Amino acid sequence: MEQRVSIITLGVADVAAARRFYEDLGWRGQEVDETVFFQAGGLAIVLWSRAKLAADAGIADDGAAFGGIALAHNVRTFEEVDDTIRRAVAAGARDVTEPADTFYGGYAGYFRDLDGHLWEVACNPGIPLADDGAFVVPPFDAAT
Amino acid sequence: MEQRVSIITLGVADVAAARRFYEDLGWRGQEVDETVFFQAGGLAIVLWSRAKLAADAGIADDGAAFGGIALAHNVRTFEEVDDTIRRAVAAGARDVTEPADTFYGGYAGYFRDLDGHLWEVACNPGIPLADDGAFVVPPFDAAT
Repeated sequence: MEQRVSIITLGVADVAAARRFYEDLGWRGQEVDETVFFQAGGLAIVLWSRAKLAADAGIADDGAAFGGIALAHNVRTFEEVDDTIRRAVAAGARDVTEPADTFYGGYAGYFRDLDGHLWEVACNPGIPLADDGAFVVPPFDAAT
Repeated sequence: MEQRVSIITLGVADVAAARRFYEDLGWRGQEVDETVFFQAGGLAIVLWSRAKLAADAGIADDGAAFGGIALAHNVRTFEEVDDTIRRAVAAGARDVTEPADTFYGGYAGYFRDLDGHLWEVACNPGIPLADDGAFVVPPFDAAT
């Protein structure tokens, strides 16, 4: 199994509302069969009916809950962290954790999207993004 | 907000056991401060204590639940789907949905990792992976 993720599917209650939320953040997607695809680097983020996803996977869906997953969107400056959180709030994000300094010398905050999916917005000066936006894990052994 | 994900953090009950699971699938990671980083294309998959993740995000954690997210790992052949699911089962995956033909002409199955995180393993001949493994959404408008 190669170390890759091809698609992150976010189960949502209302595909149109969820699409509007992400487009309010500046994203642009394509919709086919009530499914929205956003290209995100080398993978796609897909918005799909939560009920259909649960049925497709054969999972009992007991309603929105914290599934123990966070998606992080890293940016290049502390200011961009504030700006992104502010924009998310304007788009309808909830459960915001205001950005603050982190133990690793960075700056980060959290929000949840309309369906409760958890996003961290972070700037980590120790691991700068590549020019194309890729997040490349440095060799920790060499650093210590 | 650029259309990117930098990190997918999977909250886990036992970091060592979770690392072993993914390494049994053939992945190789680096660990620092009880946190495991796997490079996965242009992002990192991180294993971290579920309790620490919940506390960091200020989220009430009511225990493992279906959070409405699926991660998909696409492969190039139907055989690879079977092989990957089989390997995951050998590594301790549970709640397997046996691979079957999909409505879009592909072949896919699901498993959940040790902490219940849902993975789909799929082959979609209509959207072949790029040479570097990237999943690139085609222009749907042009195709119809």
